[in-house]
Amino acid sequence: MLQPLRGFRDFYPETMAARRKMFDRMIGAVRKFGFREIDTPSVEGLELFKLKSGPDIVEETFSFVDKGGREVTLIPELTPSVARMISARRKVLTFPQKWYSLGKMWRYEEPQSGRLREFYQLNVDIFGADNIESDAEIIAVGIEIMKALGIENEIMIKISHRQLMQGILECMGVQNVEEAMHIIDRKDKIGAEEFKRQILAVGIREELLDKLMELLSFRKEFTKEAIAEIKGAVENMLPFSSKRRDVQEMTPGFSAALHAAEKLEKLSSYLKLYEVENYCALDLGLVRGLSYYTGIVFECFDKQGAFRAIFGGGRYDNLIELFGDMKIPAVGFAIGDAVVEQVLRKSGKWYPEKLETDFFVAFTNQDFYPLAVRIAKMLRNQGFSVEIDLLKRNLEKQFKYADRVGARRVIIIGDEELKEGKVRIKNMETGEQETMDLKNLLPEG
Amino acid sequence: MLQPLRGFRDFYPETMAARRKMFDRMIGAVRKFGFREIDTPSVEGLELFKLKSGPDIVEETFSFVDKGGREVTLIPELTPSVARMISARRKVLTFPQKWYSLGKMWRYEEPQSGRLREFYQLNVDIFGADNIESDAEIIAVGIEIMKALGIENEIMIKISHRQLMQGILECMGVQNVEEAMHIIDRKDKIGAEEFKRQILAVGIREELLDKLMELLSFRKEFTKEAIAEIKGAVENMLPFSSKRRDVQEMTPGFSAALHAAEKLEKLSSYLKLYEVENYCALDLGLVRGLSYYTGIVFECFDKQGAFRAIFGGGRYDNLIELFGDMKIPAVGFAIGDAVVEQVLRKSGKWYPEKLETDFFVAFTNQDFYPLAVRIAKMLRNQGFSVEIDLLKRNLEKQFKYADRVGARRVIIIGDEELKEGKVRIKNMETGEQETMDLKNLLPEG
Repeated sequence: MLQPLRGFRDFYPETMAARRKMFDRMIGAVRKFGFREIDTPSVEGLELFKLKSGPDIVEETFSFVDKGGREVTLIPELTPSVARMISARRKVLTFPQKWYSLGKMWRYEEPQSGRLREFYQLNVDIFGADNIESDAEIIAVGIEIMKALGIENEIMIKISHRQLMQGILECMGVQNVEEAMHIIDRKDKIGAEEFKRQILAVGIREELLDKLMELLSFRKEFTKEAIAEIKGAVENMLPFSSKRRDVQEMTPGFSAALHAAEKLEKLSSYLKLYEVENYCALDLGLVRGLSYYTGIVFECFDKQGAFRAIFGGGRYDNLIELFGDMKIPAVGFAIGDAVVEQVLRKSGKWYPEKLETDFFVAFTNQDFYPLAVRIAKMLRNQGFSVEIDLLKRNLEKQFKYADRVGARRVIIIGDEELKEGKVRIKNMETGEQETMDLKNLLPEG
Repeated sequence: MLQPLRGFRDFYPETMAARRKMFDRMIGAVRKFGFREIDTPSVEGLELFKLKSGPDIVEETFSFVDKGGREVTLIPELTPSVARMISARRKVLTFPQKWYSLGKMWRYEEPQSGRLREFYQLNVDIFGADNIESDAEIIAVGIEIMKALGIENEIMIKISHRQLMQGILECMGVQNVEEAMHIIDRKDKIGAEEFKRQILAVGIREELLDKLMELLSFRKEFTKEAIAEIKGAVENMLPFSSKRRDVQEMTPGFSAALHAAEKLEKLSSYLKLYEVENYCALDLGLVRGLSYYTGIVFECFDKQGAFRAIFGGGRYDNLIELFGDMKIPAVGFAIGDAVVEQVLRKSGKWYPEKLETDFFVAFTNQDFYPLAVRIAKMLRNQGFSVEIDLLKRNLEKQFKYADRVGARRVIIIGDEELKEGKVRIKNMETGEQETMDLKNLLPEG
């Protein structure tokens, strides 16, 4: 039997009905914030992704040489495409542009739990606004999606600021901050001993190692107090940040870290306005692997830590410039379908995998087919979803089918009632039946 | 500047708003008939398409060898995937299964008007029902889509039956009917002279050539009378259909043609029940190139013939067997986005390419940002789409933005009104303004 390719999925109607509910709720939340749908090609020149992620991206993509000899790829993510689009119209677009899209993406990697070769991803971004107000709105809309799905109490959003940890690392003696961030990103994978070896190798002063470990495991509610604590920790770095220990001059790293902490403070007060601060945590261990982030970074997890990140994102003010000649600030996130479905299922919030139909029109005699079509037509004109028997089945089988398609009401055209100019209507939820005059049902005669 | 690949499209918010309306109307029509959404992979093993269409399909697809060494392709059409899905669950599915999906497909061909390398296609199929009732429903739903789009008076559906022309050809002496159908399909391309030469070469009796030409150009309203005319023409074939001219025995070709005409007769009476017969024409010249059709075939065109087919389909009862071991009858059609958009635009029915927003919350002073967020939050909770100023703009620029996003109402938080505990609300359609007590707008205080 022919199967879908590994890591690809077929969705039959019942499952799709549940998925459509999931997608509708996600999109509904985003639209309430005034985000606008856009659409991009699913195939792009490979250079677009190399531009953002370097040549290694090729390994992880469904890329190929097309029949015209061009290196192309199924898009593994949306950001380069929207960056290209923003860049192409940078001179005519009014900012901010608030965009969303829900589409398929593809990655050539080993399929595993929550990670498939073909997946859906909702992307939500604000372009052209470089401030904490837009950072707050992006996080608020992410939480609004979780609320729309009914899983807001199952999740936690870890927030940090790229320049906070970068600044701290600089203060601690690191020269190659990118490399250090990369090591921190792999901390849990490589283990504590190997982590210490590698992080010392990039220049952390040995006497500050314990302090770094402490900061990396810092995770508290996203409150003024927690941020004040971090600010204090940064201020304590001042003696180390200076090249001359006797003069406490502010190095770029120190002031960047302090500035980042102040931004987080403002963000915290804004998240309070949105009444979403309880879903947020300040987590200095969060660096997100992607080096293109320039400001806040965040990741949403299920509280039990059973699954991969539900969504993740941040501010990336320098990316769009790569695709054109204008710097346009941006903040956004992406949320895949697979992990959301896992969380919904685990928390018992997954949608019933069943069909829904307003009316099924049954008839006991093939002579009544014309009447069935007319009744169905009238109900469809009123906006109802209606099925009629297409297989000349007996009434029992018609009811079985009506049940399978979740018909709320079955209209039965039978000999006896019809003699009196009536049809029967059965409410499938309550089991109640009533008869109705045909001339009421079809007033036009 | 980086561009999308040739034959691929970027859709910005304004255009996408119009496209979403088009898609919603199309899907709304299909759902009223009780069709259920399904979803398939966008990449499949190439053998799936070779099975249906032969090895030549490779030329026209975005196919490639994946990193695992497997021949795969971006799907150029949906039918093989749904046939695979139906076949995989043939033993557990209850029939009929009425499926639809709206998704992207890809063809590697020269981009031209109404034909792109990446396009959207809505597929609508009924599986497991082998009768004229389902044929009629499929055509009715096709016309319902045209009505939902408001272009039902711009279009005409040509209908024929594969076995009608096949039977006539057999009666006329053709041995290789497939080949003859193929020649007929290319009739307009190759010109009358070349057509006559080729069609005579596959065995048409010379004395019947004029009769064939006459039948091929037969196109009349889809009425009983027109079908009776064709039935008469078929009956006139009887003398030719027999091997022995003195004994009028019915050959398979003759009886197939007669049977097909009777089916069309029944279809005609059913289309009358749906009150869609006026949109239909009986057209014997319609054969549709794809040889897998086994019953009715149809194509929907704009009446002026300015564009390619809007949608096309038919009955294909032998296809699903290719993907499994069970014969499952099927009838359906596919409708692409590009031609529908062309017809909508030409007939002045294309949707406004503009954004819509329920509320924009403007404020004259950054101190009012917290109040703006609270008002926006309250309105979003009521289901409205709401934007607030994110760029600390002056009021004039905020109104310009509100206008661009099509805000129906602007709430203005200004110093003067706020002193009295009020905000102003401007109706952007009428220009009317009123003030409102904050405590009415935010009753929770």
